[in-house]
Amino acid sequence: PHMRAHAMTRAPLLLLTLAPVVSAGCYDAQRVSVRAPAGSYMPVSFDLLQSNLGGVFDMPSGRFSCPAPGTYVFFFHMLKLAISVPLYVNLMRNDEVMVSAYANDGAPDHETASNHAVLQLYHGDQVWLRLHRGAIYGSSWKYSTFSGFLLYQD
Amino acid sequence: PHMRAHAMTRAPLLLLTLAPVVSAGCYDAQRVSVRAPAGSYMPVSFDLLQSNLGGVFDMPSGRFSCPAPGTYVFFFHMLKLAISVPLYVNLMRNDEVMVSAYANDGAPDHETASNHAVLQLYHGDQVWLRLHRGAIYGSSWKYSTFSGFLLYQD
Amino acid sequence: PHMRAHAMTRAPLLLLTLAPVVSAGCYDAQRVSVRAPAGSYMPVSFDLLQSNLGGVFDMPSGRFSCPAPGTYVFFFHMLKLAISVPLYVNLMRNDEVMVSAYANDGAPDHETASNHAVLQLYHGDQVWLRLHRGAIYGSSWKYSTFSGFLLYQD
Repeated sequence: PHMRAHAMTRAPLLLLTLAPVVSAGCYDAQRVSVRAPAGSYMPVSFDLLQSNLGGVFDMPSGRFSCPAPGTYVFFFHMLKLAISVPLYVNLMRNDEVMVSAYANDGAPDHETASNHAVLQLYHGDQVWLRLHRGAIYGSSWKYSTFSGFLLYQD
Repeated sequence: PHMRAHAMTRAPLLLLTLAPVVSAGCYDAQRVSVRAPAGSYMPVSFDLLQSNLGGVFDMPSGRFSCPAPGTYVFFFHMLKLAISVPLYVNLMRNDEVMVSAYANDGAPDHETASNHAVLQLYHGDQVWLRLHRGAIYGSSWKYSTFSGFLLYQD
Repeated sequence: PHMRAHAMTRAPLLLLTLAPVVSAGCYDAQRVSVRAPAGSYMPVSFDLLQSNLGGVFDMPSGRFSCPAPGTYVFFFHMLKLAISVPLYVNLMRNDEVMVSAYANDGAPDHETASNHAVLQLYHGDQVWLRLHRGAIYGSSWKYSTFSGFLLYQD
């Protein structure tokens, strides 16, 4: 009905600051499980991008690079391998842990480590998932995902 | 302070493209558990809508229908019944699996299968949850939810 | 390319209606576990705010106060203490349960109770997490989080 104006600026390019839905690849996750069951602070990389507006996400490194200062929100769900090693994942802003997630069970079985964060970012800041310990299950069913998008531009 | 303009168009109707928070109903979920404990690719239907701006969600079928092309985000949390059958849920775009979630435990006990997806949709695309296997716990406490909203209109 | 207008109004102040990412504090959570293992409908309070645009969140009370009518979305992840008491958490709008989350395991071990809700709020409505039963694990790793932000202003 009445005209409304959104109180923030986005340059057209910044419209594209949507980070992807990505799913952890079988190969990467399984390699991790074999080579580093006790964890080694590895970045989680991805092999499927369902959307990547603005090209802000780099799959091999698993890193989102902030294209413009503002407030962003990120979500992740990581399914652990069905092994007797708990999964610890950190959501990183550059080298700083912003939030963490944990998954374990006694079976051994799969279980999901998930969390989210609202982050204020500057141009060039990088957001990524760090495998602190454990191993991620990659599957064409796409259990393991990582997404983000802009809320408010500064 | 300075005036800012949001770099995207939404026709007034499209403002209303918010999908609902919905909670799985006792009846539906329990019926599923009795009749199909081994799963049968049934759609998850809902019996409570906390919001449905634009009327984009249909409860009996459990389907969100895209009112305008753009990028949307969806979230779901599904609590499994406390039985010894794992829960597998798929988030579908039409007939395609976009992401999946899994929950299991040894007890048997409840556990939540959750995930999210950022999806690019065209007018008329349908997004829904498919019960791949297992059974969902419906409760007036509203453990089982499914929501979505528009991020960017094309 | 073509100019687009976002079909909603936000006064500059309302731009700031982003609720925080907060993490449950060790002290609060542990106090809860010792004093109220069977639960007592306590509000979950927080001791770290990663962002609080508009000052809409009050840490000691754990309450988000709605600054302007509209549709908001909230997310929470709460890691339970590794004790043999299940965790029940409710997301409240004033005194009403909007959604709930549950976490348990047999070990005892940690496990995450999480959910989300899209809520229509009026000025002054309060959104908070209620510990129905169990105890939350606070940690500098920030496993336990609560966030929200505005989707559409009325």
